[in-house]
Amino acid sequence: MAIADVSPSKAERTRARLRAAAVAAISDRGFHGTTTRDIATAADLSTAALYVHYSSKEEVLFAIAKDGHAEALAVAHAAIASFDSPVDQLAALIRGVVAYHAREHVSAIIINRELAALEPAHRAEIGAMRDEMEGLVAAVLRQGVDEAQFSIADLRITTIALLSMGLDVARWFRSTGEWTPEYVAESYVTLALRIVGASAE
Amino acid sequence: MAIADVSPSKAERTRARLRAAAVAAISDRGFHGTTTRDIATAADLSTAALYVHYSSKEEVLFAIAKDGHAEALAVAHAAIASFDSPVDQLAALIRGVVAYHAREHVSAIIINRELAALEPAHRAEIGAMRDEMEGLVAAVLRQGVDEAQFSIADLRITTIALLSMGLDVARWFRSTGEWTPEYVAESYVTLALRIVGASAE
Repeated sequence: MAIADVSPSKAERTRARLRAAAVAAISDRGFHGTTTRDIATAADLSTAALYVHYSSKEEVLFAIAKDGHAEALAVAHAAIASFDSPVDQLAALIRGVVAYHAREHVSAIIINRELAALEPAHRAEIGAMRDEMEGLVAAVLRQGVDEAQFSIADLRITTIALLSMGLDVARWFRSTGEWTPEYVAESYVTLALRIVGASAE
Repeated sequence: MAIADVSPSKAERTRARLRAAAVAAISDRGFHGTTTRDIATAADLSTAALYVHYSSKEEVLFAIAKDGHAEALAVAHAAIASFDSPVDQLAALIRGVVAYHAREHVSAIIINRELAALEPAHRAEIGAMRDEMEGLVAAVLRQGVDEAQFSIADLRITTIALLSMGLDVARWFRSTGEWTPEYVAESYVTLALRIVGASAE
């Protein structure tokens, strides 16, 4: 039996190159202003070669959105799994998700901007991933309230406000700016702990 | 001399009807998916009549964006002028701007989404209005720090986070939801005062 090849397959590397080219093109010209030809050319491939991997421009956008949400969710799950107390869990979750949105701000911003361009079934799938993220944050907040570590008036509004702050980092963050993703993440951890009334930590 | 007519002129009423029709059409189909004919038809006018008031579809979008930003700025200026203490000023500012973004969420969301569709000079003008809003919030925070009423680690990041929370209300708020604009606004005032370390108020 052959030893399993753990490196990404050639097809997977080509798909990753296509997604990166699509992120750059859509960031410049918007989803509706970008053609499959633009994406293929930027990835140094023919349009026919693109169609081997993705059946449409919308399929490429969906893959980008799914990747991005899956990665943000993985960061959030790992943060929660690494700690026992809700204070530490919330800090790690905000730190991880904010740093991720700052580092990956180009793809995160096009995902947020172009959600309306997804087909209904795909939009629903991404919507479910967003609901999962909201559920993770809400669960940490609920546990913090139950353990008397957080003081929160409206759990759902507090959850949404925390997510708004984190998501919007992708809109304003610039890699060429004065701040590193890590500095922004640490600053947001401080703000988040204050929001939930855990600022004494 | 005739008595001054303080009611909106017929032309101004027609322009307002065109802007409202454009908000509805762009909200449904996006700026690039909307034609001047769509806007004129929805306002019960001919395309030729639209061109009497606006030279292009982009001019209509710019007028909507300018109106929206001017109104949000007026709300913020009024909030600050109504109080002396930074705590009261910040509370009134967040209350007013969040309620405005909830009530006017349909136009606010298209303004935020379609900024890239504006011509460079128009985008710069809207950018200056956004900078003015950021400056107003930053000035209140600075005064609160100077008067030892706020405790803030990074004034600029705190300003941006407060604006992110407020702006994003337009994205998720639904008039048919469980919350009134006033309830969301009051909840955000509580969160904002905690963020600036004034939660003891």
